[in-house]
Amino acid sequence: MRNVIVTGVPRADAGVVNQLTELGVATVHEAIGRAGYLGPGLRPIQDGARIGGTAVTALCWPGDNLMIHAAVEQCQAGDLLVVTATSPCTDGMFGELLATSLAARGVRGLVIEAGVRDVAELRAMGFPVWSAAVSAQGTVKETAGSVNVPVSIGGQIVRPGDAIIADDDGVVCVPRSDVGSALEVARARVAKEEQSRKTLAGGQLGLDLYGLRDKLAARGVRYVAAGEQDS
Amino acid sequence: MRNVIVTGVPRADAGVVNQLTELGVATVHEAIGRAGYLGPGLRPIQDGARIGGTAVTALCWPGDNLMIHAAVEQCQAGDLLVVTATSPCTDGMFGELLATSLAARGVRGLVIEAGVRDVAELRAMGFPVWSAAVSAQGTVKETAGSVNVPVSIGGQIVRPGDAIIADDDGVVCVPRSDVGSALEVARARVAKEEQSRKTLAGGQLGLDLYGLRDKLAARGVRYVAAGEQDS
Amino acid sequence: MRNVIVTGVPRADAGVVNQLTELGVATVHEAIGRAGYLGPGLRPIQDGARIGGTAVTALCWPGDNLMIHAAVEQCQAGDLLVVTATSPCTDGMFGELLATSLAARGVRGLVIEAGVRDVAELRAMGFPVWSAAVSAQGTVKETAGSVNVPVSIGGQIVRPGDAIIADDDGVVCVPRSDVGSALEVARARVAKEEQSRKTLAGGQLGLDLYGLRDKLAARGVRYVAAGEQDS
Amino acid sequence: MRNVIVTGVPRADAGVVNQLTELGVATVHEAIGRAGYLGPGLRPIQDGARIGGTAVTALCWPGDNLMIHAAVEQCQAGDLLVVTATSPCTDGMFGELLATSLAARGVRGLVIEAGVRDVAELRAMGFPVWSAAVSAQGTVKETAGSVNVPVSIGGQIVRPGDAIIADDDGVVCVPRSDVGSALEVARARVAKEEQSRKTLAGGQLGLDLYGLRDKLAARGVRYVAAGEQDS
Amino acid sequence: MRNVIVTGVPRADAGVVNQLTELGVATVHEAIGRAGYLGPGLRPIQDGARIGGTAVTALCWPGDNLMIHAAVEQCQAGDLLVVTATSPCTDGMFGELLATSLAARGVRGLVIEAGVRDVAELRAMGFPVWSAAVSAQGTVKETAGSVNVPVSIGGQIVRPGDAIIADDDGVVCVPRSDVGSALEVARARVAKEEQSRKTLAGGQLGLDLYGLRDKLAARGVRYVAAGEQDS
Amino acid sequence: MRNVIVTGVPRADAGVVNQLTELGVATVHEAIGRAGYLGPGLRPIQDGARIGGTAVTALCWPGDNLMIHAAVEQCQAGDLLVVTATSPCTDGMFGELLATSLAARGVRGLVIEAGVRDVAELRAMGFPVWSAAVSAQGTVKETAGSVNVPVSIGGQIVRPGDAIIADDDGVVCVPRSDVGSALEVARARVAKEEQSRKTLAGGQLGLDLYGLRDKLAARGVRYVAAGEQDS
Repeated sequence: MRNVIVTGVPRADAGVVNQLTELGVATVHEAIGRAGYLGPGLRPIQDGARIGGTAVTALCWPGDNLMIHAAVEQCQAGDLLVVTATSPCTDGMFGELLATSLAARGVRGLVIEAGVRDVAELRAMGFPVWSAAVSAQGTVKETAGSVNVPVSIGGQIVRPGDAIIADDDGVVCVPRSDVGSALEVARARVAKEEQSRKTLAGGQLGLDLYGLRDKLAARGVRYVAAGEQDS
Repeated sequence: MRNVIVTGVPRADAGVVNQLTELGVATVHEAIGRAGYLGPGLRPIQDGARIGGTAVTALCWPGDNLMIHAAVEQCQAGDLLVVTATSPCTDGMFGELLATSLAARGVRGLVIEAGVRDVAELRAMGFPVWSAAVSAQGTVKETAGSVNVPVSIGGQIVRPGDAIIADDDGVVCVPRSDVGSALEVARARVAKEEQSRKTLAGGQLGLDLYGLRDKLAARGVRYVAAGEQDS
Repeated sequence: MRNVIVTGVPRADAGVVNQLTELGVATVHEAIGRAGYLGPGLRPIQDGARIGGTAVTALCWPGDNLMIHAAVEQCQAGDLLVVTATSPCTDGMFGELLATSLAARGVRGLVIEAGVRDVAELRAMGFPVWSAAVSAQGTVKETAGSVNVPVSIGGQIVRPGDAIIADDDGVVCVPRSDVGSALEVARARVAKEEQSRKTLAGGQLGLDLYGLRDKLAARGVRYVAAGEQDS
Repeated sequence: MRNVIVTGVPRADAGVVNQLTELGVATVHEAIGRAGYLGPGLRPIQDGARIGGTAVTALCWPGDNLMIHAAVEQCQAGDLLVVTATSPCTDGMFGELLATSLAARGVRGLVIEAGVRDVAELRAMGFPVWSAAVSAQGTVKETAGSVNVPVSIGGQIVRPGDAIIADDDGVVCVPRSDVGSALEVARARVAKEEQSRKTLAGGQLGLDLYGLRDKLAARGVRYVAAGEQDS
Repeated sequence: MRNVIVTGVPRADAGVVNQLTELGVATVHEAIGRAGYLGPGLRPIQDGARIGGTAVTALCWPGDNLMIHAAVEQCQAGDLLVVTATSPCTDGMFGELLATSLAARGVRGLVIEAGVRDVAELRAMGFPVWSAAVSAQGTVKETAGSVNVPVSIGGQIVRPGDAIIADDDGVVCVPRSDVGSALEVARARVAKEEQSRKTLAGGQLGLDLYGLRDKLAARGVRYVAAGEQDS
Repeated sequence: MRNVIVTGVPRADAGVVNQLTELGVATVHEAIGRAGYLGPGLRPIQDGARIGGTAVTALCWPGDNLMIHAAVEQCQAGDLLVVTATSPCTDGMFGELLATSLAARGVRGLVIEAGVRDVAELRAMGFPVWSAAVSAQGTVKETAGSVNVPVSIGGQIVRPGDAIIADDDGVVCVPRSDVGSALEVARARVAKEEQSRKTLAGGQLGLDLYGLRDKLAARGVRYVAAGEQDS
């Protein structure tokens, strides 16, 4: 459906989303089967933030932020706003005033596949943002789009109400219905990685810990002493 | 005209430029009609700097910084050096020694649509730079270009003597003859935004503050409750 | 040779590498004839680090970090791991666990023409990384590649045992057999630059210091007073 | 769901898809509300082809075409194969042999957000392809993915069984359930455009035909005679 | 000036423009001092066309072609329409209907730093186009821009009335007041190149024809027999 | 070694190179272990050409083609000229006059990781070119570089005298010492592919021909009937 604002979308369980958030983007992404990562094109405008929330989505026309304004009204405490455009766009669709509005509603941050501006002010406010660009270029408010429809960023599909986790490694999306199982496997992964970390810190090799020596041999990788190779 | 160094170019009024600088890139860009932004490709090598000055322009050959050396002599206190190349170039055309020379003349910073190097030293010196790349790749000094001719960056035209403002949001150019009117409209905008900030912080929506509800309706945007939509 | 792990590669002299490191990337690159710079596409994930070491190289399949695990075993104290892929790749091939393993062996850092993840943890560990991307996207361990073969990054050839210097300006490679002569010319350059810095800080122009006025004239560059030019 | 091959997916009505195909990509895209265009990154390897069919989707690992082989079995006459990868990839995942296999099953063409090779042979066979790259780089067959799951290309979601139309302007996707209504509006659009074409060929202006003069005035666009403008 | 349509702009002399056109883009660009080339990002949608004319410029908002419609009215026989956008845009801003309108006015072709669509129809019509992209993505008609103001493409400034030459090598702009002198130097260059072509076809080397042997020596280039080099 | 022209480099066997050429880029690349492909960034300026020869390499400064002139003298019948630059460059470093000179020496074509111009004339001459760009932008002849040193393109190392094969799929390099063994394995591959083509044309699936069903199962890929999946 085109040009709709979907109201009252069900959200992923807030408590589970908060627990997922603590585990971080890379862990959650791995745990759910190396899925849901929104790509290296979305970078944080600040260092060290890690947030999570439930997605409200906005689909805008390039150079036009009308639908972000419409999306604000659909946001509630615990949400994250996820914005993209119908064509690639780096314009500064979002700045301090919109962040003020979102912060007033308890929104935790912004993920935008376009540009943001007022980044000094946003950092000072402590409103975390992941964006495709920083740009002062202003936008108009003229063309219809949608709020709370499925959108696609970095080859992944984000549906309203999905869990979004964002940190220094980027942004991951977990489908709403999967957050419970994701938390379970992610916690198991964390436990396993803690063990691996100790083992590796003690000097054992990943080759042995993960049983990779046979794999190398099976794939025909040969060891050659320097000097015995031609080149 | 090709291969000229234009001397004695008139500059925008220094006092007005200083006052524009305080208002910041995004505000000035919006105030002059969403114009003059040099694009998201120019990024600061430091956080938190906001400077402004009058443009001395240099047009270089790719891989060659001869004309930057020629431009230094044309710079005076209160200027900003604006450099671009005749073809796209990421090489490190500028570093600590040139910054030392510019700082000695009271130049306030550099905007370069190419690469810079010695960025640790430049940050330590407090010499602010906006560039298209960071690159240690060195350049030669062989091919003629121009100083203080109109140049184009990010689709905008920069003329010598124009006002340049740069901060964490990027770089904006205000034509020399427009700085007075730009200051006036930018100040009006700041006043209006302060009011909007309070209103939005208090929870009023941009939809209402900017009268966007009618616009959405006029463009055929419909509200649909989740579950009543197909797909 | 394809799919080999070369063992026992000779390294550049550690003492000389350490002394080169102190001089920094831009200086070393210039000193050896503006060569060996691995390009502006490799950016540090941290600010202010400057390290140097001897290269262990790994050539991976895109989306696959099997050969990084094989490379760890070939690393020794004083090395830097240099990783690339057979096709362009931004996936997060390297993270905290691999860094733990390398740190346990005394490896000084990572240079990777692909993505890294766990960047918050890597910064906290103090394990310095230069990469083409930050990405949480996970990888598999399925496809053969090579360790300690010559690889190419940014149009430069890196051979195992070469010296690698990395700082805020990027990464430079000095061939193993050239580190001694590189140190000599780099030190001479540093001495000369210190002199130039003083001269330029005192207000002398590069045009005069480097004798560029004749060059400009010989290339037909003309001085024109503003207002006397057309256009 | 990860790592599944979905069998027996329902397809859009073949007769309707064929009629949509005749109308072309731009017309269909406009008719369904300027939606479904897979972006300018997918280019034809041949000139002048216009095809349409129902989507079989394959989601591959970068550098790995295992799932294309799995997808072939799910293809039937009238289908188009739509391939993407979990991370950006330009490798030559598809060539003459796979095309031979698809042609034997009556598949009409390929849309791939990655590379293809054997393009001379594919052109000679008359097997039409739209791809993100041409590349001879070979791939492995090692890592699991999925067939006939929803995929995302160019910010659009493609579901198995959707209608895909491709011509010199690129590729558009029409959701399976919308092909009937799309055909209706697209035909109306064609009729209207034929009328417009005649009118415009006769010299009437779009400004008048589309009633844009009031719009320009309402947005503050002014007419100024050359010479009366400052600049 | 923002949001203006400038009427009655003076054009470069049509006869001179026609003669320049015959000499081709590369020759004209070289002749005027290696200037005015609009960059490799503008590619022809057809092979073998070479056209020239006088520029009518349009500056559009991204995703919006309103100002192209306004520009059509300002076009006359012998013109070329030159379009760009205030932010980077690949959308299909121009297609068959606009081409029909332009052709009816005697306009010779289109140069657009954005996308075009209906490329099969444009080729069939014989309406030549140079564009930054081919894209079916449609646009709106909502936001003000300008017609016949100076615009910047590929780092070059194009003013209304300038001469534009386009062929398989791309697009060059010659300032209106320079077409006469450009024709003179370009013809001289053609004559000289015809002589060079014969000489080189006869086996003489460019090294000798252009006197480059001394240059190589002066720059320290040494001849080394294979086998005598280390490496 | 910097700034050298290496003379008298040994070439791969001409007869073997000619036979390799007939087999094409993709086949040769696969046969030698999926190696040596110079990447999808090098595209032919013509359709349907397939050539092969022995590499003469030139390493230029960006915006400067001095070393191409030096390289011409080192070329002999059966060679291909391979050009790259020390920094990324799209300028038109090569055109009709240089092609005339190379053709007079029996050189078979050009591979250039930069731009070319006069493409209409080059096509008319039948001088085949693979390049990273088409650009009329002219270059200077000022800065030293090298001829017949190892260069790197697309992450591959090309040494003078290596075999270069180029066709519509791009360009592959085979090390000089490997051309004999490459021919042997490539011919075996061709024979095997002819058999596969017949089998696949007859309707057998690659899943069976290559034994991939077990692989899918081993990697956990499941078959699910449409409608039985959740989505």
